[in-house]
Amino acid sequence: MLTDLHAERPQHLEDLMQWLRIPSVSSDSRRKDDVQQACQWIATKLGSAGLKVDVMPTEGHPLVIAETPPVDGGPVVLVYGHYDVQPAEPLDHWISGPFDPTVRDGDLFARGATDDKGQVLTHVQSVCQWMSAGNPLPLQIKFLIEGEEEVGSANLERLLPELSDRLACDCVVISDSSQYGDGQPAITYGLRGIATYELTVSGPSQDLHSGSFGGAVMNPAIALCHLLSSMVDSDGVIQLPGFYDDVEDLPEDQRDQWRQLPQSDEAFAKSVGVEQLFGETGYTTDERRWARPTFDINGLTSGHQGEGVKTIIPALASAKFSFRLVPHQDPERLTNQLREHLAAHVPVGVAWDLKVDHGAPGMLARIDTPFARAAEAAIEQAFGTRPVFIREGGSIPIVTRFQEVLGCDCLLLGWGLSDDNAHSPNEKFRVQDYYRGIEASARLWNEIANPPE
Amino acid sequence: MLTDLHAERPQHLEDLMQWLRIPSVSSDSRRKDDVQQACQWIATKLGSAGLKVDVMPTEGHPLVIAETPPVDGGPVVLVYGHYDVQPAEPLDHWISGPFDPTVRDGDLFARGATDDKGQVLTHVQSVCQWMSAGNPLPLQIKFLIEGEEEVGSANLERLLPELSDRLACDCVVISDSSQYGDGQPAITYGLRGIATYELTVSGPSQDLHSGSFGGAVMNPAIALCHLLSSMVDSDGVIQLPGFYDDVEDLPEDQRDQWRQLPQSDEAFAKSVGVEQLFGETGYTTDERRWARPTFDINGLTSGHQGEGVKTIIPALASAKFSFRLVPHQDPERLTNQLREHLAAHVPVGVAWDLKVDHGAPGMLARIDTPFARAAEAAIEQAFGTRPVFIREGGSIPIVTRFQEVLGCDCLLLGWGLSDDNAHSPNEKFRVQDYYRGIEASARLWNEIANPPE
Repeated sequence: MLTDLHAERPQHLEDLMQWLRIPSVSSDSRRKDDVQQACQWIATKLGSAGLKVDVMPTEGHPLVIAETPPVDGGPVVLVYGHYDVQPAEPLDHWISGPFDPTVRDGDLFARGATDDKGQVLTHVQSVCQWMSAGNPLPLQIKFLIEGEEEVGSANLERLLPELSDRLACDCVVISDSSQYGDGQPAITYGLRGIATYELTVSGPSQDLHSGSFGGAVMNPAIALCHLLSSMVDSDGVIQLPGFYDDVEDLPEDQRDQWRQLPQSDEAFAKSVGVEQLFGETGYTTDERRWARPTFDINGLTSGHQGEGVKTIIPALASAKFSFRLVPHQDPERLTNQLREHLAAHVPVGVAWDLKVDHGAPGMLARIDTPFARAAEAAIEQAFGTRPVFIREGGSIPIVTRFQEVLGCDCLLLGWGLSDDNAHSPNEKFRVQDYYRGIEASARLWNEIANPPE
Repeated sequence: MLTDLHAERPQHLEDLMQWLRIPSVSSDSRRKDDVQQACQWIATKLGSAGLKVDVMPTEGHPLVIAETPPVDGGPVVLVYGHYDVQPAEPLDHWISGPFDPTVRDGDLFARGATDDKGQVLTHVQSVCQWMSAGNPLPLQIKFLIEGEEEVGSANLERLLPELSDRLACDCVVISDSSQYGDGQPAITYGLRGIATYELTVSGPSQDLHSGSFGGAVMNPAIALCHLLSSMVDSDGVIQLPGFYDDVEDLPEDQRDQWRQLPQSDEAFAKSVGVEQLFGETGYTTDERRWARPTFDINGLTSGHQGEGVKTIIPALASAKFSFRLVPHQDPERLTNQLREHLAAHVPVGVAWDLKVDHGAPGMLARIDTPFARAAEAAIEQAFGTRPVFIREGGSIPIVTRFQEVLGCDCLLLGWGLSDDNAHSPNEKFRVQDYYRGIEASARLWNEIANPPE
């Protein structure tokens, strides 16, 4: 079957490029038809391989649920992924169009290449390959591929309890993260949580002349800057009351293990184009990214943004911002801390409004399971290197819910690289890693069903 | 002649509406032809009344220079104004189109209605009326109407020395400000200076995923907020080193005089739609607006500003901001203080770039002059109320240069109202004040040439 995988590579690449051409930006209401089309594409792909497929409507974008035939007494694995993508803006930073997938130097560039179309497709391809090769799969595989991961998975989260029988499994497998580094595959056993907000500060009923009114009227953009500045100090330590109450110290053995990973601050800084890295003192870069909570402003909007000068006191100023949380931090509790902080710090003469977007707690998976051992073996065979166990700074909001509702184990097998530009212009996925991912997936089914003695 | 003024009112209004229909936004390079057309309109108007007119090219938008015949032994007055306007954005806040002048409830709404087309046109109309009535003017009047006041008057400032013979005058008259309040005309004897900047903070070479990189890379939008916040405290006191060194205390007699003006903080707050006014403690609202320096953010731009959530660390964040200065504060010295402050406060991991836009010092005029007495009389006749002497918070960058280069007195005669929405949506000019301004101007020429005993 592995020979077959090699023979199928051109078709596998062509499939992915087809899917990437569909601009399925879930946050953009003008892209609704495209999102629907990306959903249909993967449903058709799964159906044509002989899986039982159901496209299930939600209040937002539909879910694709598919399954191979049940295997008596065999394990059940659920593969989760998503067919929606982040917005592609700023468009003028892309070398080739975000929805015009292009291979350059062994990398496939497109929005969604690594996050997550390319990665989830590795499992779809491996299962299709098993099915078409005529070998009965030694376990049952279910797929759950949603269209709202990039906007918080609220509908899936709501529907999950009533789907729990249908999605029942021993382990969920997700490929939506990265290898540790070039040539060093990894199994990810922890994710950060997330909480996203939009804060609007409003002052005068319209923009005012800064000469006639400056000194008399609070400037909403200054108020916004003061409020945002008050939330985090110059070392990146978050200043909300009680914010660190639920943050646990990292176990020393974990810190020791991570410090042995081949990490270089200098190379990291260079790869993102900054002179120096930044963050809380007392923690390594991996610790800060994987296991410490953080605050980031994602966007700022106020007043005159066009050419030239317009000397106004703007009527409005707003910011989109997000926190990354560690396990045990609760997004709802954070929202309360945030409201308390804003109420205490807002200056006179302006009003504020906080829009709470999505939130999800962080996640930790067990690594002493047969599934983790099977993944170790499958990855070593496909990538030629034994994987390391790491955490990830990003968030996959639904993962904790899978653990809670389905009571299953969890395997996060990232085939991407940390410089794949997920959420950024020129997102890419190494073609070689796509092929290796398909191979690792194909081997994984066997390793899970036939664990080494 | 005053009867003639009444008869001409419909034509005077029609003239102004014609001029306002031309969107002469000087800061917008796409509006270059419109700016040119607004220039031609006023040149033609002056020429058709028999003035000698010259449209003088500059490196930017042209100057209109015009003059009535010299009067042997009589005084010479220079009227200064501008035919360019501020940008009209945000467009969706206008009740009628910014370049579709519309009268509602006695107010004429359009961009430029009060700032400055409507106001400068009062003097043009009064002079045209004198000329067409066949009465020789008892003094010589020169006009200087430029197209770059809203972008800092840099070209006029550069050319002023070589134009000093041509513009030689005893007094410059400018109507580009406001009455003290409804029913209370004023003569303005002080203006604040201005300094405008754009600060760009750059971090990673492109937007980064806030999960994978948050905690490792300084967020340029946070850095920008910290930098801007560090420049001003929560009371509006500016924190740059040495910023207040050249700020003089207000004389107590001046403070006493201003405190007698009929000012109400409550009514002021209501008129701009805020619950409470704001500013440095220890100063009245008029003192803070007219005679204390201030800092305002005019615009903020960073990261994701569209619909929905995009959890990124933006590569760039920028702010447009401006200071209002009081007499003796030097914009160039401020730029140095600002650079020093930014260099001292910039966090690690980001770079900053400061673009210095235009700057101009504040201005104070003498009020014990025959010109001021003539203006008092003319205004009282036209408005039915004796004017009060006030200052203004806004800036007319070229005024100080007139005093220096032409060695003349200066009269700032504002016909507008402080709620005319200059620089804001729904800019307006009361039609009645336009007519009164024309009458006061027509009487002024007589009062200057024939001072009361």
